Amino acid sequence: MSRQSNRTTDSKKMNAELFTLTYGALVTQLCKDYENDEEVNKQLDKMGYNIGVRLIEDFLARSSVGRCQDFRETADVIAKVAFKMYLGITPSVTNWSPAGDEFSLILESNPLVDFVELPDNHSSLVYSNLLCGVLRGALEMVQMAVEVKFSQDTLRGDNVTEIRMKFIKRMEENLPAGDEVHSRICVPC
Amino acid sequence: MSRQSNRTTDSKKMNAELFTLTYGALVTQLCKDYENDEEVNKQLDKMGYNIGVRLIEDFLARSSVGRCQDFRETADVIAKVAFKMYLGITPSVTNWSPAGDEFSLILESNPLVDFVELPDNHSSLVYSNLLCGVLRGALEMVQMAVEVKFSQDTLRGDNVTEIRMKFIKRMEENLPAGDEVHSRICVPC
Repeated sequence: MSRQSNRTTDSKKMNAELFTLTYGALVTQLCKDYENDEEVNKQLDKMGYNIGVRLIEDFLARSSVGRCQDFRETADVIAKVAFKMYLGITPSVTNWSPAGDEFSLILESNPLVDFVELPDNHSSLVYSNLLCGVLRGALEMVQMAVEVKFSQDTLRGDNVTEIRMKFIKRMEENLPAGDEVHSRICVPC
Repeated sequence: MSRQSNRTTDSKKMNAELFTLTYGALVTQLCKDYENDEEVNKQLDKMGYNIGVRLIEDFLARSSVGRCQDFRETADVIAKVAFKMYLGITPSVTNWSPAGDEFSLILESNPLVDFVELPDNHSSLVYSNLLCGVLRGALEMVQMAVEVKFSQDTLRGDNVTEIRMKFIKRMEENLPAGDEVHSRICVPC
C-alpha cells in the first residue's frame, strides 16, 4: 500500500484510548506469531522503524521545524514537539552524558500502557518498543543514526518510563537504504 | 494483560498519524498471518470487538452519556460523540430504513486510510474492518446487538466511506459472554 495522492493535510485530533487498545491488539498478535519476547521486541522495533521513516515527513510538514543545530536541540524537538503531537505527552529531557551524545526521555505516563499489565510469562517483553523504532527510523531520515532503548519501564515496576537515546553518527544524505525501506512499508504479504 | 489499577483518567489528545501507521502495521501483520482477505477481515472484526467491549467503559466515563432512548439517539451519540472522541471525525447519519432499524454512517474522510492504497491482490480486504468490530463490541456491552459492515469504501474507489448499522435486538443484562471475552483481551499467547 502506498501513500494516497489525495491525502488531506488536516490533522485529526483524537483521544488516545482507541490507539492504546489497537496497539495492544498488535502486541498480542505478535506474541502469538513469534516464539519469544526477544523476537517480539525485534519485530516491534522493526515496525516502528518503518513507521518512523514515513512519519518524519508528516512531522516536518506539520511542525515547520528546520534542521537541528545539535543533539540538544534534537532532544528538545523530540520531547516538546513530536511526543506532544503524536502521543499527547511531553517527556522531560535529562541524564545527559558528559560528551552530550546521550540523553534520556522520562515519560511520567505512557499512553501505550494504559489498560496493560505484563503477565509473568512475558517478563522480557519490551511492550512499547515500537516507539524506539519510530525514533530511530524518523531520525535516520534526517541523516542522524541513533541507538534507542528503554532503560526503565513502569510496566516492569519502575517509577517512570525512561527512553535512552545515543547519538551514533551523522549519515550521508540520500542513502539508498531509506528508499528501499520506504517502498516496503504497508505492503502486506 | 489486564487493566492497571492506577490508570489515570485524563485523556491524551494526539494527532492521528501515528495511530494510522500503527494500524497499517497491524493489518500488514495479519495479511502475513492469514491466508486470505476474508480471514483477515474476520480477525480485524474480532480484534475490534475485543477493543469495543473495553472501550465502552472509557467512553461512558468520559462522555457522561446515559442510556439511549432509541436507535436514533444511539446513532447520534456514535457519530457526534464517539467518532469525534476517538477518531476526531464526525460522520453524518443517513439512509435510515423505513422501520428505523438501520442507518448509515457516512465518513467523508477516514483517518485509518491516510497513507493507504490497496494493492490489486487484496481486492477483498476490508481494511478498516476493525471499526465494525469496535462498534459491535461496544454496543453489545450496553445490551444492544447490532450488525455492522462497510457498504462503501474510498479505498475501493467509492466517493465516501459508508458503515451500515442494523439493529438486531436488545440483549439481557449481565450476559456471561461479555465477561468471558473481557478476561481474554490483551493476554498474549
